[in-house]
Amino acid sequence: MIDARPIVAALREFLPADGVLTEPADVARYERGWRYGRGQALAVARPATPTDVAATLRVCRRFGVRVQVMGANTGLVGATNPDGSGEQLVLALERLSHEIEIDPIDRTVRVEAGVTLGQLNEALAPHQLWLPIDLSADPQIGGMIATNTGGTSLMRYGDVRQNLLGIEVALPDGTLLDALSPLRKNNTGLDVKQLFVGTSGLFGVVTRAVLQVAPRPRQQITAWAALQHGEAALALLQHLEQQVGDALTSFEVLARATLDVTLRHGTDLDRPFGADLPPYAAILHLGSTLTARHLDLAAALQETLVPALEPGAIDGLTDILMDPGGRAWRLRHQIAECLHAEGEVLAFDLSVPRPALPAFAAAAEALATERCPWVTVCDYGHWGDGGTHLNLIWRPPEAPSDDAWIDEIQEQIYALCVQEFGGSFSAEHGVGPHNQRYYDRYTSPAVKAACAALRQHFDPGRRLGTGRLGPEPI
Amino acid sequence: MIDARPIVAALREFLPADGVLTEPADVARYERGWRYGRGQALAVARPATPTDVAATLRVCRRFGVRVQVMGANTGLVGATNPDGSGEQLVLALERLSHEIEIDPIDRTVRVEAGVTLGQLNEALAPHQLWLPIDLSADPQIGGMIATNTGGTSLMRYGDVRQNLLGIEVALPDGTLLDALSPLRKNNTGLDVKQLFVGTSGLFGVVTRAVLQVAPRPRQQITAWAALQHGEAALALLQHLEQQVGDALTSFEVLARATLDVTLRHGTDLDRPFGADLPPYAAILHLGSTLTARHLDLAAALQETLVPALEPGAIDGLTDILMDPGGRAWRLRHQIAECLHAEGEVLAFDLSVPRPALPAFAAAAEALATERCPWVTVCDYGHWGDGGTHLNLIWRPPEAPSDDAWIDEIQEQIYALCVQEFGGSFSAEHGVGPHNQRYYDRYTSPAVKAACAALRQHFDPGRRLGTGRLGPEPI
Repeated sequence: MIDARPIVAALREFLPADGVLTEPADVARYERGWRYGRGQALAVARPATPTDVAATLRVCRRFGVRVQVMGANTGLVGATNPDGSGEQLVLALERLSHEIEIDPIDRTVRVEAGVTLGQLNEALAPHQLWLPIDLSADPQIGGMIATNTGGTSLMRYGDVRQNLLGIEVALPDGTLLDALSPLRKNNTGLDVKQLFVGTSGLFGVVTRAVLQVAPRPRQQITAWAALQHGEAALALLQHLEQQVGDALTSFEVLARATLDVTLRHGTDLDRPFGADLPPYAAILHLGSTLTARHLDLAAALQETLVPALEPGAIDGLTDILMDPGGRAWRLRHQIAECLHAEGEVLAFDLSVPRPALPAFAAAAEALATERCPWVTVCDYGHWGDGGTHLNLIWRPPEAPSDDAWIDEIQEQIYALCVQEFGGSFSAEHGVGPHNQRYYDRYTSPAVKAACAALRQHFDPGRRLGTGRLGPEPI
Repeated sequence: MIDARPIVAALREFLPADGVLTEPADVARYERGWRYGRGQALAVARPATPTDVAATLRVCRRFGVRVQVMGANTGLVGATNPDGSGEQLVLALERLSHEIEIDPIDRTVRVEAGVTLGQLNEALAPHQLWLPIDLSADPQIGGMIATNTGGTSLMRYGDVRQNLLGIEVALPDGTLLDALSPLRKNNTGLDVKQLFVGTSGLFGVVTRAVLQVAPRPRQQITAWAALQHGEAALALLQHLEQQVGDALTSFEVLARATLDVTLRHGTDLDRPFGADLPPYAAILHLGSTLTARHLDLAAALQETLVPALEPGAIDGLTDILMDPGGRAWRLRHQIAECLHAEGEVLAFDLSVPRPALPAFAAAAEALATERCPWVTVCDYGHWGDGGTHLNLIWRPPEAPSDDAWIDEIQEQIYALCVQEFGGSFSAEHGVGPHNQRYYDRYTSPAVKAACAALRQHFDPGRRLGTGRLGPEPI
């Protein structure tokens, strides 16, 4: 067991009283994941500047202490809370949130890593700008970089990686790597910031970032489409991209069971399509910086959709509901909670190539209901970018009391996705203890070896990260 | 001196007769860069499949031969032709150009690395799709990845990195790294393909790629703007991004001297603004997948620009010329040639943060004309993404016969750009022998060290690459 006292004393040499927490009551909230996971922390360090983050890592190096970085704790793969050893220092970045420097001419912003997406977009709003990552959660910018967050507008605006211009990283050796350039074009060799995007903080702690931000749309329109099968969704997606692709921001698809569960548990929701829900429903969302004076977005969408509804146009597209108030998004953002209200949830964050979405959805549902007839399959997701959140829901009394079936079906669904459909076992939630074994199984030896070489370079003491992205044990 | 015979014999075991060139007459065209550079090759290997590229690298490993990869040979930093040692095998990818697999539903394409941008866009056209990288040259896809090509539409569509979904790479050990996934969302740790983007082929030879492609615009409009100073260009850029940002594809700025030289030497060009050229001219280009039925792009642009011309709106914006035929692009793509027709050219491929463009342009011109009064400064570039191609032009009789001044002013301009303005010494041309010394000077030790660790991992024998991106000599 590690003695926390000399470590805490060393941290207190440069951090103020509320910058180091040791009392169990204070530490408790840093030991739990938002939805999953629980561990035990050695103590909590809350530095408020990049140099204090680096100094904290120097202390960890001196004492050989492992570090668990925590952003807004909204992650879903167990990568934010400490493990059960009681030997990890939680490095919380919530106080690293003073700087939001907006440059409207450059259309960029420099932020500290502990700033949340919500805080950033609030600061950008008066400039008619936004960071176009649309999520149900409100993570910190640093966590968004470490997991390369996607969301519902990725098909139009890209992921975090595609909006990231520069970063500053506190490295495990306690130095600050300054790659904070706001340049959009800078091809001078290795783009070092890429190493820290989506790698779960394994190589360093992001302390600041420069992001390119986008002009805020000045008009938006949402619509529902009723679809008799998944192939109709793909045909509609292709039609929309060809006709109004510039304005198409989101293309979300919900299976009937998902819509049904959400409508039963949700708060203040409109019911699209009346009593008779279609097998699939799509939420279409368009936005534009052009005003209605030059572009009537609602008319453009409607006139794109009406011919698509005609017989012989898109087989399986049976209805369209315009949703000028965007109320569909209220429903969309309540799905995850409503699934949890329905019963126990086994959630998957998957992606496959877009053309494979219908076949994968059908195969996964067939597999799950054949092996586990007590589950309801609720899938929904960002079909515009190949993402699908597959969920198995059950009421505990109806399922076997032995939980072994959960592991089994999880293995089978992941195998189906990755091996049969060329998909991903983690589309946008990253890698953490919850899916470590699938990383181990499905990552090629060459990628693991490259990752191990980088970890050996940046963190030979293996103090950062809850998981392992190389072939070596922690 | 290396004996080429056993190496050539080993290559001929799996490559056909025209797959290995040794005759000086055949080899000559692989020994010269397109615009700059000249060397001597041991021989030329022309594999036609990814497995033959890997097998070629295995031969190189066996004999300890260094390799110079050549794509379409359109590079401008000396990274495509072999050095003068006569000990490098040129690995030409021109025959690796059979596969162009388009998936219109996925909106992706899988291509072999030797396919050119022009060939790819020709194949995509019937699907109303394109790879939205707009260049004056016609490089191969593999070379575009190795240099992370930018071009004139980067501000709207991103660089190669932002359009790249997957790659296959022949590694220096002679194995193929398969990261050819077409997934848009796949956050499963290190995104290994990023290591091969913009790193000049130092870690491996890209053999295939999966690219996301874009719906082709169905209408486009171009216009000229006359500007009295650089600040007016920035104000106009911001105005356009706010009003018609979704459609704004290019924002190119040309200084008066550049426009003047191009008009004097160009072929079949319209003369904007008559006899009296403004200090700066901008080419604005908008495109949209929406048709004129829903969006009158020309009217939108005109009605955005007319209020901007009014007194008190944008200071220094003095004229607008609509260019419905897009003839301005003809002029834009002739600039480089026309500068070379005017005299000797010292060319810089730079970028700075957008707000710094006017001050940098002024400072660079003042520096150059003060130190070298015999030069004319011709700058132009992609101001929309902070890029600027600065050129010093002179007629040899008017310049000192001793070339030492060229090195001196080059050092001073780069120092001004990087040190005073936080800019890049290579915005979009990459790193090669021509700018190696600026890489050495301006790259941080931490980035060089990360690069060296990766090179040690992938290529401990140092057989790939003409330059060095780590701190170590070749």
